[in-house]
Amino acid sequence: MPDPLSPDLLEKMHAYWRAANYLSVGQIYLQDNPLLETPLRLEHIKPRLLGHWGTTPGLNLLYVHLNRLIKQHDLNMMYIIGPGHGGPGLVANSYLEGSYTERYPAIERSRNGMQRLFRQFSWPHGIPSHVSPETPGSIHEGGELGYSLAHAYGAAFDNPDLIVACIVGDGEAETGALATSWHSNKFLNPVRDGAVLPILHLNGFKIANPTVLARIGRVELTELLRGYGYEPYFVEGDDPAVVHQLLAGTLDRILAQIRHIQEEARQHGATERPRWPMIVLRTPKGWTGPKFVDNLPVEGTWRAHQVPIADFKAPEHLKLLEDWMRSYQPQDLFDGNGKLRDDLVALAPTGHRRMSANPHANGGELLQPLSLPDFHDYAVTLSGPGSVRAESTRVLGHYLRDVMKANLDSQNFRLFGPDETASNRLEAVFEVSGKEWMAEVEDVDINLSQDGRVMEVLSEHLCQGWLEGYLLTGRHGLFSCYEAFIHIIDSMFNQHAKWLKVCATIPWRKPIGSLNYLLTSHVWRQDHNGFSHQDPGFIDHVANKKSDIARIYLPPDANCLLSVADHCLRSRNYVNVIVAGKQPEWQWLDIDAAVRHCTSGAGIWRFASNDDGDPDVVMACAGDVPTVEALAAVKLLREYVPDIRIRVVNVVDLMVLQPRSEHPHGLDDRGFDELFTTDKPVIFAFHGYPSMIHKLTYRRHNHHNIHVRGYKEEGTTTTPFDMVVLNDLDRYRLALDAILRIPRLSGLAAAATARYWDSIQRHKLYIGEHGDDLPEIVDWRWTA
Amino acid sequence: MPDPLSPDLLEKMHAYWRAANYLSVGQIYLQDNPLLETPLRLEHIKPRLLGHWGTTPGLNLLYVHLNRLIKQHDLNMMYIIGPGHGGPGLVANSYLEGSYTERYPAIERSRNGMQRLFRQFSWPHGIPSHVSPETPGSIHEGGELGYSLAHAYGAAFDNPDLIVACIVGDGEAETGALATSWHSNKFLNPVRDGAVLPILHLNGFKIANPTVLARIGRVELTELLRGYGYEPYFVEGDDPAVVHQLLAGTLDRILAQIRHIQEEARQHGATERPRWPMIVLRTPKGWTGPKFVDNLPVEGTWRAHQVPIADFKAPEHLKLLEDWMRSYQPQDLFDGNGKLRDDLVALAPTGHRRMSANPHANGGELLQPLSLPDFHDYAVTLSGPGSVRAESTRVLGHYLRDVMKANLDSQNFRLFGPDETASNRLEAVFEVSGKEWMAEVEDVDINLSQDGRVMEVLSEHLCQGWLEGYLLTGRHGLFSCYEAFIHIIDSMFNQHAKWLKVCATIPWRKPIGSLNYLLTSHVWRQDHNGFSHQDPGFIDHVANKKSDIARIYLPPDANCLLSVADHCLRSRNYVNVIVAGKQPEWQWLDIDAAVRHCTSGAGIWRFASNDDGDPDVVMACAGDVPTVEALAAVKLLREYVPDIRIRVVNVVDLMVLQPRSEHPHGLDDRGFDELFTTDKPVIFAFHGYPSMIHKLTYRRHNHHNIHVRGYKEEGTTTTPFDMVVLNDLDRYRLALDAILRIPRLSGLAAAATARYWDSIQRHKLYIGEHGDDLPEIVDWRWTA
Repeated sequence: MPDPLSPDLLEKMHAYWRAANYLSVGQIYLQDNPLLETPLRLEHIKPRLLGHWGTTPGLNLLYVHLNRLIKQHDLNMMYIIGPGHGGPGLVANSYLEGSYTERYPAIERSRNGMQRLFRQFSWPHGIPSHVSPETPGSIHEGGELGYSLAHAYGAAFDNPDLIVACIVGDGEAETGALATSWHSNKFLNPVRDGAVLPILHLNGFKIANPTVLARIGRVELTELLRGYGYEPYFVEGDDPAVVHQLLAGTLDRILAQIRHIQEEARQHGATERPRWPMIVLRTPKGWTGPKFVDNLPVEGTWRAHQVPIADFKAPEHLKLLEDWMRSYQPQDLFDGNGKLRDDLVALAPTGHRRMSANPHANGGELLQPLSLPDFHDYAVTLSGPGSVRAESTRVLGHYLRDVMKANLDSQNFRLFGPDETASNRLEAVFEVSGKEWMAEVEDVDINLSQDGRVMEVLSEHLCQGWLEGYLLTGRHGLFSCYEAFIHIIDSMFNQHAKWLKVCATIPWRKPIGSLNYLLTSHVWRQDHNGFSHQDPGFIDHVANKKSDIARIYLPPDANCLLSVADHCLRSRNYVNVIVAGKQPEWQWLDIDAAVRHCTSGAGIWRFASNDDGDPDVVMACAGDVPTVEALAAVKLLREYVPDIRIRVVNVVDLMVLQPRSEHPHGLDDRGFDELFTTDKPVIFAFHGYPSMIHKLTYRRHNHHNIHVRGYKEEGTTTTPFDMVVLNDLDRYRLALDAILRIPRLSGLAAAATARYWDSIQRHKLYIGEHGDDLPEIVDWRWTA
Repeated sequence: MPDPLSPDLLEKMHAYWRAANYLSVGQIYLQDNPLLETPLRLEHIKPRLLGHWGTTPGLNLLYVHLNRLIKQHDLNMMYIIGPGHGGPGLVANSYLEGSYTERYPAIERSRNGMQRLFRQFSWPHGIPSHVSPETPGSIHEGGELGYSLAHAYGAAFDNPDLIVACIVGDGEAETGALATSWHSNKFLNPVRDGAVLPILHLNGFKIANPTVLARIGRVELTELLRGYGYEPYFVEGDDPAVVHQLLAGTLDRILAQIRHIQEEARQHGATERPRWPMIVLRTPKGWTGPKFVDNLPVEGTWRAHQVPIADFKAPEHLKLLEDWMRSYQPQDLFDGNGKLRDDLVALAPTGHRRMSANPHANGGELLQPLSLPDFHDYAVTLSGPGSVRAESTRVLGHYLRDVMKANLDSQNFRLFGPDETASNRLEAVFEVSGKEWMAEVEDVDINLSQDGRVMEVLSEHLCQGWLEGYLLTGRHGLFSCYEAFIHIIDSMFNQHAKWLKVCATIPWRKPIGSLNYLLTSHVWRQDHNGFSHQDPGFIDHVANKKSDIARIYLPPDANCLLSVADHCLRSRNYVNVIVAGKQPEWQWLDIDAAVRHCTSGAGIWRFASNDDGDPDVVMACAGDVPTVEALAAVKLLREYVPDIRIRVVNVVDLMVLQPRSEHPHGLDDRGFDELFTTDKPVIFAFHGYPSMIHKLTYRRHNHHNIHVRGYKEEGTTTTPFDMVVLNDLDRYRLALDAILRIPRLSGLAAAATARYWDSIQRHKLYIGEHGDDLPEIVDWRWTA
């Protein structure tokens, strides 16, 4: 077979690669003398050497080869980099193809611009050492490892024209998230979705160790990747000329195979899951870098991971670095003004075809708002507060079904969840769209579809990773999850929140759809599963992030949930966490009242209050189950102490509790005091860990009077009411809390306490004997 | 080939399986009439039906077959169940072999005992529906999915005689943690470690969906499992007689193969990584259960997942359940007193050979305390506070090296970390033991060893899962991790903390070694990696768990770290989180002072205080970097306002801040007030998110005066000092905070503020120009 690259093209591509490598090394090392016009001196070298060389030459090699493919076939291609600490490589390539200067005009394509390019890297007030939001063409932070492939699939969904090249580091490949991400190919439809081209970069080493996949032999690795459903193509070597030809030929074959798969599916109606091609690129870590430093091997070892030559007190190191940099022949690549050779410039694609300028990598540019049905139409009708019960998430399911329907044509909305859409009672969506499934189907299966827009897989990592990739490329979605197990993606949430926070400071990054969580099957209703399924702490985790990003909602009933969900789906650049139960629960507000309540974020519930502006106690609540208990406590109190003046405050937007200085949703002090008074006892029934409320309110005037009940890490397989009893969140306890804290009722303390213990005793005996809760004990008719 | 089971044995094993299935169904459904002595009536059925049937018959089938193997070969075997929501099966088997009654004498092996067994399941004040700490023989909660295989490997390490049978659910197999756990075989040494026998239970369905691995075809699945390094044996079918013979024959072959591998390695010195056998068991979900309910297929579908017949308002359902239960022929299995047939009893192993009574599954029974060197011997010598710098974790590394050494013979200590032991500067341990590695080795590798006791793999999930398995079987360990990325295992930590909490209430569960985390490469020193690597929130997460479990330490220097580490390695049943930096940092306390300080948990640092019992301000600090900044602020203040009276309080054990009522380490109010006063401003420099301190101290007298600085989610690749500036934790800000809060210094406010801004400006300009921090600006000589 003839070589795919002509000698001329080979020479030029190799030169382009050298240029990218030169610029990468320059970023890591130099603060001056960018073109090596004079012999390298110590003062040209940065005082702090921070960066990762090891993975960079591989990333650069792939870049120039993908560029050839893009140019030749006019491809729409993105580049996602798992080993994204190879940041200098991506910056270098963006600079070479001009997009860097377009985004950052100060970094001119000139000698001075190159010096600024070098100096800004890993420099205070400069740019980070990893691929980051600042890097043109990126949607994937090169920090925490494991999420590249899931992001790539998320980006490819509903983008039939797109090819997402995704470099998977062999270190990253050891993570759990990445190990399961390979299976994403069972959820990608070649008709409707784009292609993902995984490239496993087998450079052999992590920070200090060999990688597992590099040391299991080619046979076993091939089996593994075929077992994952791919056809692996191996490109291996350490002679650039050979590897260039091999890689080019392989890419040609692979592109043809991708085209063939898509044609079969799109033109000829093939419905079998295809075996997608992928590449295993085995090249030396730190390729083209120093082979030895201080007589220890560096190229091709873990020693090449970060900065191969670090200590410049040793005089020979300066020489070593200079030799290394000159080995790329910069004078042959750039003219005296730092301008790249014209014939090399011509190798790169232009405009939006540049991977560093692909609009999908700045998803806000492509964002179309969702078409949303009027959520009022899905409202639960009440004759009064507590007159009916409803399953909140089931009500939401009807709304989401029509959201799905209204956006079917625009193909920009998906629902994600780990095998729980139906369990979470959102199954109405299946009337409109099934669950995406490209694997084998049997007769008993229901709701599966190759065209499904509901993404179910038993991996929170995949749900989160796919959704992030989908959002970052300009689409919309919602992730519904068991509340306890959303902690599985705590760390992924961190990275996305950090990404959003930084994007907000970058003018060219356009707003994207918010990351919406619906946490249901929550802590209070794990009747079936018990203690292991009880953890309301994700909202604590979220509240630690920047207030311009984090939003937390605890709608007390179905109508509030509708209002909140509509708001979240319209929002941009947030992480919205909605916590709402799926079990039949009492309903409180009609839809208009719900909208008003959700708009305020918190409010006095007049129907349950009788304080006339001067309460003895404020019964506050946040969350559906705590709201029921708080209202039941109010009923008990009214019966027991008829002249008590009670104010009921419900909080739906948790962030209103924070001072305005801390969160844009925060009530000002006057607003807060109007709800919670400045001096009356507040009994706060809370969905989550009690300390959360203290953390939000500690600066408020009346904070010392706020007494919070919530989840205190007690639970097992038991009845719903026993769960609140175990955690002292039950109506009896809340009522007692109120009595004990109202000074003028001190005479009642002993009797009320006795009555409380008696109630608890009756409850314990009853459920022990009957295995179920006492029948409902509250009559919800409210009188003024 | 002749059938491995004689007709008689086959009949008996099948009967045993029927007995286990009968008891499982009984637990899910019945509160009375346990032996079906009378026709089933509605009142025999529990009011709330909670449990998971689908996976249970498969678990029971494997149990009776493993029992045969154990008996026949006198095996030491444990049973770890990934699909542990199949709790009734494990309880049933423990009951059948007598260990359940030994642990819980009220659950007699009689008709009444059986009724209690049935009734307690998923019943308030009874037992949970999943495998849980209450289940004899278990070390693995059947709640959150994904960790079974990592636990199994952790249990097998250093137990050469043990075989750990590990059932992996095909739902669970989709999780990230499980997907990477297969690679654990590259870290198991057949000479020194036991065997893990993975059994992939391919029952085809999750809650509502088919599973991926059941729908990729046998060829692809085989490739995948071979790619993971196993030799899969398929046992498939839905005819019990056939499957019994197949499974028995396969287990015989597999045991021979395990023995062969071990012999080759142990007797003949084979050093190649062996290809371990495993089983793929493909049987119908909910096998032997109802085939149809309401004309919908159940057996072999996702509808069998939980309670196949749920609604007993339909009269035919009662009949269906009765037919189902009678299909097991209970009268043939149990006598009128509920006693199992003698020939069936004889099938089970006895004593510690029963999987439900294997001592490894109650690790505390086997626990040997670590032999610990005297940590004083590793102390940093100081001529005074701030006289030297040291890298705390490097100092700890020397101590850990000798901990490793002192326990080499007992083989009960390992160190775990994701590729970061050296990066975290603990590499002294390599002088004593290498990194476990059974995959291929190349010349450039260092510190790898087939006998290594340092476990490095780029997966926090594996580190955590292995360590949990190792601890739960009675050994000791420490997990060192980058602080930010420990969030990857937030959810695993949850499950372990819950496990420990429940175990504390079970008398027969003996105390086990604590789960020790060393979080380093922390938020303040991510010079190299920047924003993505900055998150100090794991301690917030841990603080939400029960106070009898959670311990958090922030040693300010190397000597305190030594004292804390020694304490943690001696402790039992805790989760200890230690946060300590690896960079050269000033040292404050000699070893005796460090021990005193760590024993108190918090204290006044006299050398830096001049308050004579009556401070103008308390400068508090927790964490190494905040301590440096707080002390530098004290120096600045003394210079600027010579007559200021400052008290310095350092907190090493964060839990002392909580009220004693909330945490056993909590200071009583008097003790707290003696440190923090009741009315003086407290400027608190904190390692983590500031709200953590408020959450811990909101009930304290002086809380409204506590002003906390900590990480506020600002960061990038920048200098160490710039990081504290970005987050307002720097010395200038702390000094200004103090001045602004001391009433008698109000006259200085304007000048001090100006001076602050001037300092910050100088800093910004300097680092922008030089790319590095200003030279050290504090002279640490303290005067009384």
